Amino acid sequence: MKVEVRILRFWKSLALGLTVSVAVMTGGVQADEGMWLFTDPPLRQLKAHYGFEPGPRWLEHLQQSAVRFNNGGSGSFVSADGLVMTNHHVGLDSIHKLSRPDRNLVETGFLARTRDQELRAPDLELNVLLSVEDVTDRVDSTVQPGMEGEAAEKARRAAINQIEQESLKATGLRSDVVTLFRGGQYHLYRSKRYTDVRLVFAPEKDIAFFGGDPDNFEFPRYNLDMCFFRAYEDGRPARPEHFLRFSKDGCREGDLVLVAGHPGRTNRLDTLRHVEVTRDLFLPEQLDLLRRREVNLGVYASRSPENLRQASDALFGIQNSRKARQGALQGLQEPEIMATKAERERDLLRAVQADPRLASRFAMAWDQVDRTLEVARELHEPLTLLEGGAAFDSRLFRLARTLLRLAEESDKPNSERLREFSEANRESVLLALFSEAPIHPDLEVARLADSLSLLLERRGPKDPLVQAILAGHSPRRRALELVQGTRLADVAVRRALHQGGLSAVRESRDPMIELARLVDGPSRELRRRHDVEVEEPQRQAYGLIARASKEVGGTEVYPDATFTLRLAFGQVRGYEEAGREVPWFTPMGGTFQHAEEHDSLPPFRLPASWLEKRSRMRLDTPFNTVSTADIIGGNSGSPLVDRSGEVVGLVFDGNLASLVLGHAYTDQQARAVSLDSRAILEALRSVYEATELLGELGR
Amino acid sequence: MKVEVRILRFWKSLALGLTVSVAVMTGGVQADEGMWLFTDPPLRQLKAHYGFEPGPRWLEHLQQSAVRFNNGGSGSFVSADGLVMTNHHVGLDSIHKLSRPDRNLVETGFLARTRDQELRAPDLELNVLLSVEDVTDRVDSTVQPGMEGEAAEKARRAAINQIEQESLKATGLRSDVVTLFRGGQYHLYRSKRYTDVRLVFAPEKDIAFFGGDPDNFEFPRYNLDMCFFRAYEDGRPARPEHFLRFSKDGCREGDLVLVAGHPGRTNRLDTLRHVEVTRDLFLPEQLDLLRRREVNLGVYASRSPENLRQASDALFGIQNSRKARQGALQGLQEPEIMATKAERERDLLRAVQADPRLASRFAMAWDQVDRTLEVARELHEPLTLLEGGAAFDSRLFRLARTLLRLAEESDKPNSERLREFSEANRESVLLALFSEAPIHPDLEVARLADSLSLLLERRGPKDPLVQAILAGHSPRRRALELVQGTRLADVAVRRALHQGGLSAVRESRDPMIELARLVDGPSRELRRRHDVEVEEPQRQAYGLIARASKEVGGTEVYPDATFTLRLAFGQVRGYEEAGREVPWFTPMGGTFQHAEEHDSLPPFRLPASWLEKRSRMRLDTPFNTVSTADIIGGNSGSPLVDRSGEVVGLVFDGNLASLVLGHAYTDQQARAVSLDSRAILEALRSVYEATELLGELGR
Repeated sequence: MKVEVRILRFWKSLALGLTVSVAVMTGGVQADEGMWLFTDPPLRQLKAHYGFEPGPRWLEHLQQSAVRFNNGGSGSFVSADGLVMTNHHVGLDSIHKLSRPDRNLVETGFLARTRDQELRAPDLELNVLLSVEDVTDRVDSTVQPGMEGEAAEKARRAAINQIEQESLKATGLRSDVVTLFRGGQYHLYRSKRYTDVRLVFAPEKDIAFFGGDPDNFEFPRYNLDMCFFRAYEDGRPARPEHFLRFSKDGCREGDLVLVAGHPGRTNRLDTLRHVEVTRDLFLPEQLDLLRRREVNLGVYASRSPENLRQASDALFGIQNSRKARQGALQGLQEPEIMATKAERERDLLRAVQADPRLASRFAMAWDQVDRTLEVARELHEPLTLLEGGAAFDSRLFRLARTLLRLAEESDKPNSERLREFSEANRESVLLALFSEAPIHPDLEVARLADSLSLLLERRGPKDPLVQAILAGHSPRRRALELVQGTRLADVAVRRALHQGGLSAVRESRDPMIELARLVDGPSRELRRRHDVEVEEPQRQAYGLIARASKEVGGTEVYPDATFTLRLAFGQVRGYEEAGREVPWFTPMGGTFQHAEEHDSLPPFRLPASWLEKRSRMRLDTPFNTVSTADIIGGNSGSPLVDRSGEVVGLVFDGNLASLVLGHAYTDQQARAVSLDSRAILEALRSVYEATELLGELGR
Repeated sequence: MKVEVRILRFWKSLALGLTVSVAVMTGGVQADEGMWLFTDPPLRQLKAHYGFEPGPRWLEHLQQSAVRFNNGGSGSFVSADGLVMTNHHVGLDSIHKLSRPDRNLVETGFLARTRDQELRAPDLELNVLLSVEDVTDRVDSTVQPGMEGEAAEKARRAAINQIEQESLKATGLRSDVVTLFRGGQYHLYRSKRYTDVRLVFAPEKDIAFFGGDPDNFEFPRYNLDMCFFRAYEDGRPARPEHFLRFSKDGCREGDLVLVAGHPGRTNRLDTLRHVEVTRDLFLPEQLDLLRRREVNLGVYASRSPENLRQASDALFGIQNSRKARQGALQGLQEPEIMATKAERERDLLRAVQADPRLASRFAMAWDQVDRTLEVARELHEPLTLLEGGAAFDSRLFRLARTLLRLAEESDKPNSERLREFSEANRESVLLALFSEAPIHPDLEVARLADSLSLLLERRGPKDPLVQAILAGHSPRRRALELVQGTRLADVAVRRALHQGGLSAVRESRDPMIELARLVDGPSRELRRRHDVEVEEPQRQAYGLIARASKEVGGTEVYPDATFTLRLAFGQVRGYEEAGREVPWFTPMGGTFQHAEEHDSLPPFRLPASWLEKRSRMRLDTPFNTVSTADIIGGNSGSPLVDRSGEVVGLVFDGNLASLVLGHAYTDQQARAVSLDSRAILEALRSVYEATELLGELGR
């Protein structure tokens, strides 16, 4: 199974954010801009603007306290006993999977007062980055000059898989070769992996996601978007070398704050033409699909409280993603924004063309991107349907595909495998494959039926593959038949198929495996074409464009986000909106007023615990705060620390301005939104009376 | 303004329902099938199957008691003082327009205990059909043999406008030439028109639409989907010649019931190829647009209780329409259904080709339909965006377009005008144009911004018309500018512009009028092409196919629904579903249980009145009932009467089976769902204590 960056709050993996490298070329990064590598931190900026000079140990401490949530999100160690802090919406997937009809932890919240009450998440993996090695030369040297498309892509994949496998063998650590600057650099990341992760505390969703979709990406805000897990090793709480302490004083306006987290994806290096295709094709298509799923799941959820419980996690992800992409699209529909983008590209191109040495090395890159875009356009719909799985929106189908591909790929030399089935990734794939997370048959039917209908609508009933997939039935009937017929919901059946190897999955009569087999040929072929005709040439071209930017604009530059660890920084600061001052924080007491203004109806309904404990709470405690740090989806759950490296907040969102203007860094209105560390402590103390946790946090 | 059949529960105007005339050709109508003309009622069937022989006076009484709601829906006179009964969801548009932030009649319900408390609806028009005249020969004679496309369409339109104007002049009655059998017949309908219509009673929406979208189109069901208006003439309650009395005993299983109402639209005559295009293009596109609007309005509504109030009427219409079309599409995705359709078409074609006289007259019709479908495909998107208004989803824009076109069309001879601006339609257009219904600027911006974005996404930013429409702004900014800049929300401004005539609207600097002017040329051209290259040749071709069907299959046939008055009939009868018996009625007491099963959360929350009066209610009273009558969207609000012509129910919905299988009449599971007359009386008595109303109903 592909290690999937799950849809998170903020702009998601595919969402946008352009400009930066372009800003760089034409004169420099704005004050608080940048998602910097820990290997190349913004020391000059921190010193110049804030007089702050973090040493190597300061950086190492923060880096190794930071935790990557492998299902998409960030977190940090906050105690010597492996306590991990993240957002509720990052933990939601696990909290949801730990719930049952009679134990709805999403609704009721959860608090383990002793270690043996902690609940093990069925398939959660955490990583801590321990070391980084530049392997650019080794990867690039495998791609011979003149090598094109297929050969280049194969050679590069082989080299990457090989480096990862060697590292895994040598160190036993999770080893990922990550692509930076869209192909301009390759780094080998070695990480410690935790797969026994247990839920310690989660508040009720009504306060964790108070205000729901309408308040999402907005400020002022009143969310206790937090939860705690604990990492275990060999059945005992982990003892991490580094962890962050909670600040005693918190932050105040004007303070420097720093963020260590895993921003999911930006496309700031994209050419103008690439951005136009994103605006005119990719984003509208993605939005259509998201709206379709939102309506379909919303209808399912509305039928009963139990249906709502089953669907709520997925529904949140979809709504969040829809709102993020809508914001991105609206940003790209602003003529000024595209004009700025065009102007900057023109400046860079002029600079390149003005210097013959630059021109001969870089000028062809833009045409090369254009050519890949033509193929990307052509492949977009079939690729989304088949390889992207839009036509098979079902966990059971994804399990079937994973079983099939895992068997097929394991039979090949490691260097020839699909990336996500490389030896280095095997443990993560198996964790997801054998997850005990419950599968809801009715929900599966509802999602699969609608996505099979999408397939039929898009490709038409005369398409031979469609006919084979539907097997003479309507989408609804076929979905029912597949979900009722498959036995893959049973983990033991999945284990047996996996142990049976290639022959077992090739001969299986399980209808979902049969469907996966039927689709796999065309699906792989589409992916192959995309890898060879889009990804690889884009990698080469953007590698050139990144270098051109550096050479024209100077060396201070950070790569587009790739769900790898980054350091961002900024200032705690309010802003002006529609002529009004928006203060830098909201007080906890404002939560009650906000509920009343909305008649306390969902999603503006407060949990009983908050209503009961209102009189005990210090209502003037800062609840949510804003800062100018440059963050994006995947940063959810990142710790916000001060100069001393102590936690002053927990990043959980960006405001609407940061979303609409997400293509370009700006500190005018765009803000990262965090949960204040003082509110975390106050809630644990006054509302949840979590004395054990407070003790562990040293407060 | 086009007299628009509003989106109603059941399948809406454009929704489907195929087969019937085809069933006819191959051997006959099923027992309770048909939406019959009052001029050609199903006397044989009623006698044969039910031993019932209604006389001309029985039919005239029912016909003239039936009321057409001009905004899309049906109703009936139920007292000598002009009391009109219909569904809550038919009256919802008016109830919504009569509400204000501090008077939310949708939520609280309404009861006028005296005449002077009744509230005048701002733009509701009711019609009662008084006479019918066959004008087929006169219309057809204007279209000379060999006349094609443009000339034929013009000649036909001129003849129709002319007939209507003559009739209006001669009688003073509303005069509509209606097209039957898709062009096989033309009838002149003369109707009495009521434009002073006042709200008398409406229950709370929580019980009128109990169960909301999840329960919509489902059974068992528990809805008090009713309301009462009163028609006025010259400031006094109307005294209609005919009205229906309430039955003392109601109905029971097996009883014959009859329905007089205005089914909106069926396409049962469509060729196989036509149905395929509907399934593969029209319906999926419509669904995409509906989902988009549903999500956009849902987001708007979720922001505050006041936003929800403003948007709820539109949101209901959209969800209802989405569910109806989804059901229609699912029906057409059933291979068996398409196979049956194909087989029947083949049979008809064989019969036609087997007889040289039939072949020479009819065989070319199918090719002619095919040719129109190619044009329809090509025109679909631009037509939907511009002339269909999908790009300008705003009441203010629709008002601007109406002002512009009304001025332009009024300047032409009546025979050359667009149909909806003919002299005979003038009064209805003005009623809508000068409606005092409130316009909500924020809602206007939200809808217009999203639809302008749709335009931009579909036509791209390089399209010159798009550039002119957006005037250098983003869709959101432009929508704001238009809504803030226009003065058309003020009825006085609209009146002044109208009085200023053509020069006033041509010279107006109102930005919404300017937008309407900008779009009007291309929009009219698309419509002209559609009229000439699709509508007119389809009319001719389907006229032939209808005649071929009759000649092959016999004379007993009814035309596709066209929002004109029809007579349906059937039997009160339960059905079997998934091996379980579904009884023919639900008891009122079941309502409370249904709420509890859904934790009494919206839309399963009962109003306080019901909870308070629970102990007083006779809980075993039949609440909602099902029958086999052949109905469709537009039938909402139709009276269900017994042999004596007394009201035993109020039609408000069809069940899911009727929706999925909407292409073909079947009495296996498909059922019309009605509110039982006994429940109406019981609710008025026990819950609302509406003694005045009960007295007026004679109960």
